[in-house]
Amino acid sequence: MPLVVHKYGGTSVGDAERIRNVARRIIAAKDAGDDVVVVVSAMGDTTDDLIKLAYQVTDTPSARELDVLLSTGELVASTLLAMALKGMGHEAISLSGAQAGIRTDSNHSKARIMAIDPARVKSELGAGRIVIVAGFQGIAQDSDVTTLGRGGSDTTAVALAVSLGARACERYTDVEGIYTADPRQVPEACKLKEISYDEMLELATYGSKVMHPRAVELGQIYGMPILVASSFNDNRGTLIHGGHMEIRNKVTAITADTDVAKITIVGVPDRPGIAAGIFGSLAKAGVSVDTIVQNASIQGITDLSFTVSKGDAGKALGVVEPLAQEIGARECVADTSLSKVSIIGTGMQNTPGYAATMFDTLFAGGINIQLITTSEIRITVIIAGEQAAEAVKALHKAFELEKE
Amino acid sequence: MPLVVHKYGGTSVGDAERIRNVARRIIAAKDAGDDVVVVVSAMGDTTDDLIKLAYQVTDTPSARELDVLLSTGELVASTLLAMALKGMGHEAISLSGAQAGIRTDSNHSKARIMAIDPARVKSELGAGRIVIVAGFQGIAQDSDVTTLGRGGSDTTAVALAVSLGARACERYTDVEGIYTADPRQVPEACKLKEISYDEMLELATYGSKVMHPRAVELGQIYGMPILVASSFNDNRGTLIHGGHMEIRNKVTAITADTDVAKITIVGVPDRPGIAAGIFGSLAKAGVSVDTIVQNASIQGITDLSFTVSKGDAGKALGVVEPLAQEIGARECVADTSLSKVSIIGTGMQNTPGYAATMFDTLFAGGINIQLITTSEIRITVIIAGEQAAEAVKALHKAFELEKE
Repeated sequence: MPLVVHKYGGTSVGDAERIRNVARRIIAAKDAGDDVVVVVSAMGDTTDDLIKLAYQVTDTPSARELDVLLSTGELVASTLLAMALKGMGHEAISLSGAQAGIRTDSNHSKARIMAIDPARVKSELGAGRIVIVAGFQGIAQDSDVTTLGRGGSDTTAVALAVSLGARACERYTDVEGIYTADPRQVPEACKLKEISYDEMLELATYGSKVMHPRAVELGQIYGMPILVASSFNDNRGTLIHGGHMEIRNKVTAITADTDVAKITIVGVPDRPGIAAGIFGSLAKAGVSVDTIVQNASIQGITDLSFTVSKGDAGKALGVVEPLAQEIGARECVADTSLSKVSIIGTGMQNTPGYAATMFDTLFAGGINIQLITTSEIRITVIIAGEQAAEAVKALHKAFELEKE
Repeated sequence: MPLVVHKYGGTSVGDAERIRNVARRIIAAKDAGDDVVVVVSAMGDTTDDLIKLAYQVTDTPSARELDVLLSTGELVASTLLAMALKGMGHEAISLSGAQAGIRTDSNHSKARIMAIDPARVKSELGAGRIVIVAGFQGIAQDSDVTTLGRGGSDTTAVALAVSLGARACERYTDVEGIYTADPRQVPEACKLKEISYDEMLELATYGSKVMHPRAVELGQIYGMPILVASSFNDNRGTLIHGGHMEIRNKVTAITADTDVAKITIVGVPDRPGIAAGIFGSLAKAGVSVDTIVQNASIQGITDLSFTVSKGDAGKALGVVEPLAQEIGARECVADTSLSKVSIIGTGMQNTPGYAATMFDTLFAGGINIQLITTSEIRITVIIAGEQAAEAVKALHKAFELEKE
């Protein structure tokens, strides 16, 4: 029988009535002729509440204990969903990450899936059962529970879909799909029928919160189609897949990320090894650096800028200020009120004109560009934070995305 | 190193501050020179809340799923306690029932412990860690989670203590120990320094809610001393043990149980097989029958009375009424406003006079006795429900328990 993996987010299983609603959707999929494996997140704010509880007990909760604690949220949701299905007369069973064979490394709070042993899931499917798997969790070699960190439940779902040879992974939340821009910012934004893995990865990495890049990447590596749709209606969602994107020749979506701080080291002597020293120290301090721009050197002196998340700005300054002094730079400047706006589209590859249209549009809107970075299918500008919404709107219009 | 098993009830770990309090108690025990294994119940009302949630989702929650759901309550408490201990600078680790090697049968919601594999607990103790075990749960042969039903966490604690060769099992709750009577009913009631397993079993079975008989029985079989004390102060508790009780010659405690209904089948023909038929049918219907009394037969006709919990009275009547008609009995009468009052004491064995004192005291107090049952170390009377408190007070005085 063909198999489909569903994944339901925390909002979709937020209370008893919503859990019954999800059960009805799963039954419909089963009745339509698929075997169904379901991955669930914890109900509503459960995970946040458990984290709060841990910090009430101690300022330094052990990562190993925190993982077991947080894993209970998904266990609760998965058992309730299995009960709902059985109460509606369908054979169903919940499995913990360990029981579902999700084997991970031992990096508590951010474990990576090493392998999936699908034996138990397959035998339950073979017995005619709908299988509900607690997302976000696995088991390490020492048989301790681990959690997968950000994007964890989506990753569980895609990995299970791959390992079981599912025809697709369908991810249901309170969002109807992937849009040409954030509909809260751009009312004219259109829902995309499909998007390529590459585009979705850029989108996820450059500000769209709809899906964590990790699960998309996994889908791309194994060619698993991922449907993003709402659990609250039957509207058609967005299919993330890899096929036949080359003939398109346009921008697919605009995205904005307002969690951007820029640090500039002014007057850096242009000597080999200096950048390596700075970014090596930042990495050691656990600061994740995003964009790096080094201006052309004038008389052996240059400016070095990089961006980090706002939360990391203080830590980053603490690392680079002594280094700047040491190497004889003039000063360090931090700007924590920036945003990153990107245009993304596979159709942009090897096609000129997109950058020009982007820059012209922003210029016409009086929006000053501070930094530019690009990939093959993305152009990103860093601008003042308060101009992000305005920039997204103007670009959405300029690239005629409302006609999608 | 000598080993002690502590067990903390739901009230003792009801919030973050109480969990830290428990952590301090455990550290004190460790500092005093013991290895410590701790069994915890779920925090406060967690278990009831989870059951409510299940019944919001479906009227007929699957027992298998309910067990996984409920087991999360103890996981949460055990991880938080381990975090608190680590936060205070002590090596600690939480283990699920499965990880602690608690192997049970597959009777979901009322599983029995079949065996304990203490390998993991021992290796963690060997590494110098305080081991926190989630109570009330185990793992069945098919590696599914089970729960142990009523008295489950106490049973986990005593069973672990036995399997690890602990010197004692210490059970901490919001109750200071075992009293000669319920202190809410009899202000003069005294806390006992010690009580025998036999007495404690009778006490637990005949109305004292302090401890479920199941764990006491396990303690008795393996000779494991059980200390019952409060987690909120350092007052001396009550030690349940087996030693040297024969020389005592007195009543140890008075207990009352107000959850008693009596059903009488009036005018039963005194023929062989009739009682067997009635109680066989009740057992099949899942009605647990407590006391049974059959009056002497007069002219081949007798009255048959038995008691059940109030909640089972309706079901019991539904079973016996058609049977009574079938066998030609006159009628069935139910009285749901009764209580059971017992005097308990190893010292009563083979010593006359206790029954007489009990009946005289009740007669003097104008309390009518409806049924009487006895064991070697217990005399129980069934009286009107509203006279229970009065009866306990009068008996407490008559047997001079306030001088304990």
